[in-house]
Amino acid sequence: MTRFALTVEFDGRSYMGWQRQSHGPSVQQSIEDAIAAVTGTPPVVHAAGRTDAGVHATAMRAHVDIDKALPPFRLMEAINAKLRQSAAPVAILDCVAVADDWHARFSCIGRRYEYRIVHRRAPLTFEAGLVWRISNPLDTDAMQVAAGHLIGHHDFTTFRSAHCQSESAVKTLDRLDVERTGDRVTVHAAARSFLHHQVRSMVGCLALVGMGRWTPEDMRDALAACDRARLGLNAPPDGLFFVGATYPD
Amino acid sequence: MTRFALTVEFDGRSYMGWQRQSHGPSVQQSIEDAIAAVTGTPPVVHAAGRTDAGVHATAMRAHVDIDKALPPFRLMEAINAKLRQSAAPVAILDCVAVADDWHARFSCIGRRYEYRIVHRRAPLTFEAGLVWRISNPLDTDAMQVAAGHLIGHHDFTTFRSAHCQSESAVKTLDRLDVERTGDRVTVHAAARSFLHHQVRSMVGCLALVGMGRWTPEDMRDALAACDRARLGLNAPPDGLFFVGATYPD
Repeated sequence: MTRFALTVEFDGRSYMGWQRQSHGPSVQQSIEDAIAAVTGTPPVVHAAGRTDAGVHATAMRAHVDIDKALPPFRLMEAINAKLRQSAAPVAILDCVAVADDWHARFSCIGRRYEYRIVHRRAPLTFEAGLVWRISNPLDTDAMQVAAGHLIGHHDFTTFRSAHCQSESAVKTLDRLDVERTGDRVTVHAAARSFLHHQVRSMVGCLALVGMGRWTPEDMRDALAACDRARLGLNAPPDGLFFVGATYPD
Repeated sequence: MTRFALTVEFDGRSYMGWQRQSHGPSVQQSIEDAIAAVTGTPPVVHAAGRTDAGVHATAMRAHVDIDKALPPFRLMEAINAKLRQSAAPVAILDCVAVADDWHARFSCIGRRYEYRIVHRRAPLTFEAGLVWRISNPLDTDAMQVAAGHLIGHHDFTTFRSAHCQSESAVKTLDRLDVERTGDRVTVHAAARSFLHHQVRSMVGCLALVGMGRWTPEDMRDALAACDRARLGLNAPPDGLFFVGATYPD
């Protein structure tokens, strides 16, 4: 048995999310089906994070145990060939052999997301489902001030989905930066781990600040309230990308 | 009657091409249907160029005559609202009133295309159908030398589709530049007008040069042969974008 760490890119538009579901297609199923077609044995693939329906990844990390002695590059090429055949919008970008106790989820000490917003009146074409379109202009300076209130060790109950299974709502947010390039605004978020819907909830409220419907102080007060009812807006999944996971060494 | 000039962005993946067809969806039909829903009268929309199935545009120019006295901005917003309702991957980016003798096709004195290539082994996800994936590394210096042989006033018969309806194969190619950014290669092409399949045929042969299967001199010889049988490769429509049209003034 060899454990392989995979770096996975996927377009979440066609999926119910990462995790295998009985009622619709999942990224996990697409990858497990492709690996089963290569090795002849149905595997279980574990990921650093379980993304929601419509959420994307440019570099999700995952691992899988394979019985066959295959060089990592050949395994990756074989999985990609099967993914291409099935027209699944998933690609394995990297594949390396790792220690048997390396775990994509439990060994992970940092997760990074990007949330992509575009300020534009016209409907989306190429990027429909890949970015959140906002017709109002956004004050990104105010957004950055509001983001500053969320950085650090806090109870994020306000920014947590009712379906969140985490034992505690207390998390440490390491980074929340608002970057503007022309009509595009990207929010960069990093933490050891996030609550369910945390990034989308923080970005939704940042957008309210950007549109002038909230002040940066409203963000601080919403956080302090520790009350889901104080959430201003949950951003759609469209603009959310899992962009990286960090491991020791 | 007022004539309006439109700037149109569209994702060609869902379309049989620009021109209205009996056997499948077209960009022209999507726009004409949206305008008819706004004005109550079926219009005819004329474009600077008629793109093929699967070809895209970031800035196609077009015109339409409207009987109603609508301010250009309101007309654009109304058309976009109808396009959004029908989920057509088309957006009107700009709309201005023009003189009655301004014609998107016949007044046009310059057309610009971009062809997008990515060097990558893994299958495409977000960009499937929006870029030509080539697994071999590309020698862009050699491609630029080969492109230089095509610049200028030539008989482009070798790079012309058998279905081309142009009276003459003699055209003046003003620009053909190969630009690399990391794993991405963009070919920029500009001319007063192009033959059917000319950009895709030139790019296909440039790719052969980039992969080392043709020398830059093979490109020169293929052009000089004036023989479609000497075409090395026609690039797929995926990577082709109409990016601009020029008009007097």
